[in-house]
Amino acid sequence: MITVTTVKEMQQITENLKQQGKKIGFVPTMGFLHEGHMSLVNKSVEQSDVTVMSIFVNPLQFGPGEDFDRYPRDIDRDKKLAEESGVDILFNPVVKELYPAEPSVTVKAVTRSDVLCGASRPGHFDGVVTVLSILFNIVSPDKSFFGQKDAQQAAIVDGLVKSLHFSTEIITVETVREEDGLAKSSRNVYLNDKERKEAPAIYQALKNSSNIYIKSGKERAVEMFKKHISSLNGELDYIEILTYPELQEPKDSDHRLIAAAAVRFERARLIDNIIFTTEEV
Amino acid sequence: MITVTTVKEMQQITENLKQQGKKIGFVPTMGFLHEGHMSLVNKSVEQSDVTVMSIFVNPLQFGPGEDFDRYPRDIDRDKKLAEESGVDILFNPVVKELYPAEPSVTVKAVTRSDVLCGASRPGHFDGVVTVLSILFNIVSPDKSFFGQKDAQQAAIVDGLVKSLHFSTEIITVETVREEDGLAKSSRNVYLNDKERKEAPAIYQALKNSSNIYIKSGKERAVEMFKKHISSLNGELDYIEILTYPELQEPKDSDHRLIAAAAVRFERARLIDNIIFTTEEV
Repeated sequence: MITVTTVKEMQQITENLKQQGKKIGFVPTMGFLHEGHMSLVNKSVEQSDVTVMSIFVNPLQFGPGEDFDRYPRDIDRDKKLAEESGVDILFNPVVKELYPAEPSVTVKAVTRSDVLCGASRPGHFDGVVTVLSILFNIVSPDKSFFGQKDAQQAAIVDGLVKSLHFSTEIITVETVREEDGLAKSSRNVYLNDKERKEAPAIYQALKNSSNIYIKSGKERAVEMFKKHISSLNGELDYIEILTYPELQEPKDSDHRLIAAAAVRFERARLIDNIIFTTEEV
Repeated sequence: MITVTTVKEMQQITENLKQQGKKIGFVPTMGFLHEGHMSLVNKSVEQSDVTVMSIFVNPLQFGPGEDFDRYPRDIDRDKKLAEESGVDILFNPVVKELYPAEPSVTVKAVTRSDVLCGASRPGHFDGVVTVLSILFNIVSPDKSFFGQKDAQQAAIVDGLVKSLHFSTEIITVETVREEDGLAKSSRNVYLNDKERKEAPAIYQALKNSSNIYIKSGKERAVEMFKKHISSLNGELDYIEILTYPELQEPKDSDHRLIAAAAVRFERARLIDNIIFTTEEV
């Protein structure tokens, strides 16, 4: 594995790979890697000639008072994990490389962004689509791999690529979970023991609620989710059931849906979701 | 010259050219070609292996009540001129090809866009940077050629490429003028005889004002411009003197400036500009 830190070197490598006809798989991350990221790398290695991973904690997608400064970082451990999992090129630029000056042009998620996590994080997804546009331009991936855990992000990235005609294909990979069902996340390290024991209830409650939705509709499903979560120390940020990937209020004719929730614990805000269908396909 | 109308075919051609190591020059236009466009093609032919021209009247950069529907179009004449001037590939998609649905993600010019033409055309430059991002993604040009006549556009495109790290180099080409000094423009066909005789005064007044600026400062330069233009039937939209390419109010320490103006005639709004320095370099 080679580590690249400058835009210029990364672009030269990309251009050479293209000229050789190599297919580039891309796994963009903010580092502090866990098995969720590794599952993205596995898919990329299966489907590509060369796998590029980026590690870049993107200041543009953190709001004021959010956890940019204390977002967990461990680049030495990350490098080891990336190499072991089959990454060929690690792109790890400093902030000034991607943003040498205040951007005079940015990218804006105009739909799918004002619900779920977007409702409480204004501008977050604008930061996500801006940095992904930059990374797509530098890495020129044939395929890019995203986790289903960040379902809203996956839906918005789908819109980014279709709207701006990036030539990368978006592959969404199933959420990797702990044995007790908790979705893997870099932020899980901030849970204390009690919270860690409570956290799998989010996934359980989502599963129950999607079943209740099918039988009894949205109001009852949301109510049961809230009841299930109310016994935890964590505080419910949102529970929503929407169409996927459009993230609209479901009508009777909509059958592909997402149940998504966010719960705030003392030092970590956890998200999870289930995508389900309301009839046999 | 071949004509391409679909995104898919254009992307395949681009990918093949890249694999062959060919350098792509790109001239994006809205058609109704004139010598200004031809001068961009000439530069591209000089500096590239393959020249791609796009002709696409972009609805996103026209505001409500602007001239999208009656923007002049003559594709047969354009094809002839493009081929004669050395274009290898003409990309001429319909609106539904670039915008198959309402875009869920767009690009936004956050600086340099609220002065000059941007002041009276809110959202115009957002439409410009969105369609250019799409075209850059489809054409993957090594160099892209823009006219200095659209100086604010050139400044914003410079910001687009630097902010989002597009790998294309922006080449700005000097304004082509009629013998009497009027800048070539697709909209000149809408001038009546009297207006056509008056229109070169815009360039004359810009030249005078830049000289007056150097001797006597901005206030006097703007005043003289207004006086010069007041005798015309055309109505002054704006006259501004700003730094270039940042488009900020000039301070004593700023020496690279632009004097830019827009004048509304009955059926055409004309723009022109001069870039000048306030001291010997």
